[in-house]
Amino acid sequence: MIRLDGKETSNTIKEEIKDQVTEMKAKGERVPHLAAVLVGTDGASLTYVGSKVRSCEYVGFESTLIQLEETITEEALLAQIDTLNKDERLDGYIVQLPLPKHINEEKILLAIDPKKDVDGFHPANFGRMALDLDAFIPATPFGIMQLLERYKVPTSGKHCVVVGRSHIVGRPISILMSQKGPAGDATVTVAHSRTKNLAELTKQADIIVMALGIPEYLTADMVKEGAAIIDVGITRVTDESHPKGYVIKGDVAFDEVAAKASYITPVPGGVGPMTIAMLLKNTLLARQWNLA
Amino acid sequence: MIRLDGKETSNTIKEEIKDQVTEMKAKGERVPHLAAVLVGTDGASLTYVGSKVRSCEYVGFESTLIQLEETITEEALLAQIDTLNKDERLDGYIVQLPLPKHINEEKILLAIDPKKDVDGFHPANFGRMALDLDAFIPATPFGIMQLLERYKVPTSGKHCVVVGRSHIVGRPISILMSQKGPAGDATVTVAHSRTKNLAELTKQADIIVMALGIPEYLTADMVKEGAAIIDVGITRVTDESHPKGYVIKGDVAFDEVAAKASYITPVPGGVGPMTIAMLLKNTLLARQWNLA
Repeated sequence: MIRLDGKETSNTIKEEIKDQVTEMKAKGERVPHLAAVLVGTDGASLTYVGSKVRSCEYVGFESTLIQLEETITEEALLAQIDTLNKDERLDGYIVQLPLPKHINEEKILLAIDPKKDVDGFHPANFGRMALDLDAFIPATPFGIMQLLERYKVPTSGKHCVVVGRSHIVGRPISILMSQKGPAGDATVTVAHSRTKNLAELTKQADIIVMALGIPEYLTADMVKEGAAIIDVGITRVTDESHPKGYVIKGDVAFDEVAAKASYITPVPGGVGPMTIAMLLKNTLLARQWNLA
Repeated sequence: MIRLDGKETSNTIKEEIKDQVTEMKAKGERVPHLAAVLVGTDGASLTYVGSKVRSCEYVGFESTLIQLEETITEEALLAQIDTLNKDERLDGYIVQLPLPKHINEEKILLAIDPKKDVDGFHPANFGRMALDLDAFIPATPFGIMQLLERYKVPTSGKHCVVVGRSHIVGRPISILMSQKGPAGDATVTVAHSRTKNLAELTKQADIIVMALGIPEYLTADMVKEGAAIIDVGITRVTDESHPKGYVIKGDVAFDEVAAKASYITPVPGGVGPMTIAMLLKNTLLARQWNLA
């Protein structure tokens, strides 16, 4: 059984990006520049954004943190988006979610210039990805593709069952793995809350991507011997014996499933750490591309 | 066994649209206006475009046919596209494919304003569809969804195998059938040229969508008793005994599969006739929506 180590892979990718930035600097080129918009003072959001900004600094990107009051109007936020769209020294930016309830998230996301949408949440990017054009792929599916590719997990002609049909994980990963190309050419089934006899499906699968959000849902009896397992679930489960009062669980009952698996991502330390690396990668791509 | 009659359903939809146009006129509203751009004098393209224009007239739409020389430059065609994008009296338009070889089709399709892209080929529309926003859905998958919905073919929780991963049929229908909503909530598998043991998959399917382009590929032994069969294939097969010298065949060996099926689309007369009705529907939607 091979553990797909997201922490190590993420570090490798960051080093690769850092090297490319060093080269750009040596050539006198402008380095990639990422901005992050944070509305309000939610603790988790602050942590995420802080970590993104620090990663930018680490690889040599320029970064800008735009902190806005919780009470900002939708109109004022849209004006801020417009400024960022027009800022030619900015390659990409993200708007940290969730936004306060008085702001329509969809409206904000649709206002982001797809050419700067390094989170890959804009429909124009989703469509470009699905139609095999250059596109910003959302960080989680992009990270999964990188893990599959770098660990050379066989996918061509394999049956992959994706459990979950969300816009940012299940749906995009199902498309990417079914397209031609590295980590692609799989026969992909998308299962979800309405699926009947899920275990019958997963038992046939050569690869299972769990993106359901139910801790330890996938048990050993649902898995074929030798399957590759990708676990996207990250749920806090109360655990009084732990100093923090909780532990992080994936959608996979790790120990029992790992015993049957050919490849498996741990939680934490699997898919999760890949996301910031892929955000940096998208920002580098934004600097390099000139999307129409 | 119930035959999904595309000709009849298409006519029903046209009558519904015609009634809505009559109502719009009665209210003094501007009727929908579709334009078709035809480059060159290819016989099949002329036939298709002519039939689209006649259908517009039938339902009471305004229509404009723009015929351009085979030798038009890409630049001049892009200028024409720009004019159409800016024309406020025009709700939607199509550029009939294929284009002459000296013109980059992708570049042309990307230049179409997504708000007027009633063929639904622009990535912005694909993305909007995949992310559950209002979108122009390409005519073939849109037509299949209408057939499934109007004939009340059960889809929720059913296993659907889509054979083919093309951008305009296999991929979009797989997404639509797996989304929430009418004719949706299916567990969908996308199979393609790299899929191994296709028959093992199709034999498990409650619904099979064939979009492969290989005549009579799906045979009775590949199908479960009671499955619903959607045949998107349209291939000309030489047949000297026929006055035209050919017959039109679908991807399904119709007679033997029909004997086992609960629902089946014939070829011709199934999915094919739905496409023009869905183009008209998209044009009506373009008139009604104001997509951001």
